[in-house]
Amino acid sequence: MKTNPGRFFEDYRLGETIIHAVPRTVSGGERALYHAMYPARHALYSSDAFARACGLPASPIDDLAAFHVVFGKTVPDVSLNAVANLGYAEGRWLAPVYPGDTLRSESTVIGLKENSNGKSGVVYVRTRGINQNDTVVMEYVRWVMVRKNRLEVPAPEAVVPDLAKVVVPGALVIPAGLDFSSYDFALAGEAHRLGHYEIGEKIEHVDGVTIEEAEHMIATRLWQNTAKVHFDATFREDGKRLIYGGHVISMARALSFNGLANAQMIVALNGGAHANPCFAGDTVKCWSEVLDKAPTAAPGVGAIRLRLVAVKQGAAPFALKGEDGKYLPEVLLDLDYWALMPV
Amino acid sequence: MKTNPGRFFEDYRLGETIIHAVPRTVSGGERALYHAMYPARHALYSSDAFARACGLPASPIDDLAAFHVVFGKTVPDVSLNAVANLGYAEGRWLAPVYPGDTLRSESTVIGLKENSNGKSGVVYVRTRGINQNDTVVMEYVRWVMVRKNRLEVPAPEAVVPDLAKVVVPGALVIPAGLDFSSYDFALAGEAHRLGHYEIGEKIEHVDGVTIEEAEHMIATRLWQNTAKVHFDATFREDGKRLIYGGHVISMARALSFNGLANAQMIVALNGGAHANPCFAGDTVKCWSEVLDKAPTAAPGVGAIRLRLVAVKQGAAPFALKGEDGKYLPEVLLDLDYWALMPV
Amino acid sequence: MKTNPGRFFEDYRLGETIIHAVPRTVSGGERALYHAMYPARHALYSSDAFARACGLPASPIDDLAAFHVVFGKTVPDVSLNAVANLGYAEGRWLAPVYPGDTLRSESTVIGLKENSNGKSGVVYVRTRGINQNDTVVMEYVRWVMVRKNRLEVPAPEAVVPDLAKVVVPGALVIPAGLDFSSYDFALAGEAHRLGHYEIGEKIEHVDGVTIEEAEHMIATRLWQNTAKVHFDATFREDGKRLIYGGHVISMARALSFNGLANAQMIVALNGGAHANPCFAGDTVKCWSEVLDKAPTAAPGVGAIRLRLVAVKQGAAPFALKGEDGKYLPEVLLDLDYWALMPV
Repeated sequence: MKTNPGRFFEDYRLGETIIHAVPRTVSGGERALYHAMYPARHALYSSDAFARACGLPASPIDDLAAFHVVFGKTVPDVSLNAVANLGYAEGRWLAPVYPGDTLRSESTVIGLKENSNGKSGVVYVRTRGINQNDTVVMEYVRWVMVRKNRLEVPAPEAVVPDLAKVVVPGALVIPAGLDFSSYDFALAGEAHRLGHYEIGEKIEHVDGVTIEEAEHMIATRLWQNTAKVHFDATFREDGKRLIYGGHVISMARALSFNGLANAQMIVALNGGAHANPCFAGDTVKCWSEVLDKAPTAAPGVGAIRLRLVAVKQGAAPFALKGEDGKYLPEVLLDLDYWALMPV
Repeated sequence: MKTNPGRFFEDYRLGETIIHAVPRTVSGGERALYHAMYPARHALYSSDAFARACGLPASPIDDLAAFHVVFGKTVPDVSLNAVANLGYAEGRWLAPVYPGDTLRSESTVIGLKENSNGKSGVVYVRTRGINQNDTVVMEYVRWVMVRKNRLEVPAPEAVVPDLAKVVVPGALVIPAGLDFSSYDFALAGEAHRLGHYEIGEKIEHVDGVTIEEAEHMIATRLWQNTAKVHFDATFREDGKRLIYGGHVISMARALSFNGLANAQMIVALNGGAHANPCFAGDTVKCWSEVLDKAPTAAPGVGAIRLRLVAVKQGAAPFALKGEDGKYLPEVLLDLDYWALMPV
Repeated sequence: MKTNPGRFFEDYRLGETIIHAVPRTVSGGERALYHAMYPARHALYSSDAFARACGLPASPIDDLAAFHVVFGKTVPDVSLNAVANLGYAEGRWLAPVYPGDTLRSESTVIGLKENSNGKSGVVYVRTRGINQNDTVVMEYVRWVMVRKNRLEVPAPEAVVPDLAKVVVPGALVIPAGLDFSSYDFALAGEAHRLGHYEIGEKIEHVDGVTIEEAEHMIATRLWQNTAKVHFDATFREDGKRLIYGGHVISMARALSFNGLANAQMIVALNGGAHANPCFAGDTVKCWSEVLDKAPTAAPGVGAIRLRLVAVKQGAAPFALKGEDGKYLPEVLLDLDYWALMPV
């Protein structure tokens, strides 16, 4: 077999590091496409002049675009035979990515737990995105349920990593030079600074986007994510193409501009759940909740911890979970992240 | 409220200048996307070598792409609560925009007139697009009908600006260095120079494009135009997404290459009307009429004033207005502009 | 008539060279779009770092993207009135194309043969893509059946060029500096080197992509290919838009990564047939057959000759031709090319 059948649960070894293929040099092309796929408007990622006024050398590639590039490379090795993408934790952006940078990805297996049915198991990997200077630009833990192929292989010793519920503020990495002390609120689009947000405050982000097949496939291909289920209408029995969860993440984050225009840089991904599948024709909207706030050592820069919830048509305001504690069917995404905001 | 509800008629003050948010650095990515969205083929905007042979330092971003970037920024402040986009006047391109340039927009309110029903009013703004060197790269006047929110606010004194019906040839700004004296007609695609066009001549541009939802949304997002009506299929009662008028402008201009390949640079927008709405599934075609010609001071460079009419399927040849003087239902756009052409 | 009606069979003269219009400067934007339209993952075209480790100055634009740019320019002069695209031969990539390069195209008429019905004829052209330094970056022969307009024009003397069935290995041009002696198989995605492939071996490439109207139009416009039939749903009687054959070529080539990840650079196009039309909604899959192998003079670099067959939904494994020797209705493309691979 010359083609890659993907790894099955029994193919992973605790502690092994997988070098993911197909490094990627990003350019202004990726930036333009990201802004064409999502209504992304955070000024720091739109304008070199604005980024320079904030102490950076130029406008970086959107943090989530960098995430998608890093994530996409892991798909052939981690999730080709995945039944479900179960969670994220301990995600941190460690250095901005600029046009001209080349990214590659590596993942270390940090946990393995076979399911009691013996037909699948949970694989925990810590993935690192690394640039051409060997700088780690981001890292995150992800766990997926993967099918077992050779059912006769004995279960490995169960190891479930002890993962932080949230990245503590002291662990957030602020990009070198970042300075919001002369931040231009007019150009950024809103006057709200960190002090204007209250913990517990919820924001309905108003705007919505109806998703088309061409769009999510274009985006997902750009990240070189190869999972069949996103592209091949003959693959699922219902003839639907499942939209890459990351497409919903980026759509929701971009829509959250309206009310969170100054939540500029994403620096940590505390957790996330793809609550329900998203398909073409769905209209995505979102709301946010302020979960926490923290100071940072950088001038004028604070951190805001946000829950970002993406919902589809028919969702009630601030829809999340039902009385049974389960996500409501209109909820697509429940994400928990830290962003940097002028204080 | 953290989200932006948009301005209502009573929120505008005569003479005020609005700084629009989200400056944008453009790159080869925006250029490639523009050429992927529209069948744009004017050689000066396709080839650095061709542009240099015409005296420019490199191939600029298409003039209408620059217009869309500048225009898109104004939407959250000017047309979020607009009932109708009524007109354009006195538009001039003042300097080419190159990859690497950063654009921002400002608008000054130059006219206000409440409607007699007291529920809406017309707002006139003069918008300027400004680059990272504080050079004004373009300006235009646009007027829109905007809803009133607090109906009890007294009407402002009515001020309707006196706008030029057409930008006079002497006011056209020719890019520094532009020289068409050794213009390569073979590479440009057609042999027709300014002298070959007669005032009153009409050209049927032959080609047509059927528009898809994904395409107009991708384009409109790229210009960071956020008007819900273009993206959210649940917003209008009929479930249709209205296509951004600028998408039709760019589509028609690109289609007009076939017959006007040498109408290279757009230097003025005299006026324009979005005659009827355009929706996905419509097939856009166009025709042009030569309205005027003028010399310029630049070597080998003349100016041609053109009417560009976009129509959809079912339109008769050169369709425009009915006997009642109103636009025919198949007419989408009636645009009046000046372009530069080799003499 | 200001618009271009295209050339008819009687308009071609043996030996004449046609300068095609609209030169094009490519950038990272074209690269990003190519990777967004097709699941292209060959590392040499994805990463500057990988390309440099292979002795090139940077990552080139995908070979087929360069082909499409060159090909697209020929459409207004060669195939606007074509009834059928009959074949390719003697295609060679002679120099990589990098972001910043400007391409133009020229074609020489090397054969003419009027059909016995007197209503059409076959035109053979040798097309060259040329960069800003006047370096020929690729050349290929293509023949098309073109309608005759003035049926009374006498048939030209029939000249059918003697075309090579296959580009011989000695005629393959290896990019200067190319060196696969320290090729990184892990980053490239597969461990298979030239020695692992057997002549006659067939590979089912597993993945499939369902094509959308927006996608093929975006791609085809990017190459400035203007043929109405791809864009205008009112043009064909059945209301379908025919997908540009090159879209299928690129889709299949990208899908063949899974099993041929190390077939990095395409250096020759021996032949090709668009066996059946492709329409939006079709799901494209592909298979390959190893036709030949050859050494090259470059360190660590071998050549592999591959048949690439694209099929649509419903195709049997390795579908190609029926008992009547004709292509099966599910077969879209049968391409024969040489690629460079580490030995």
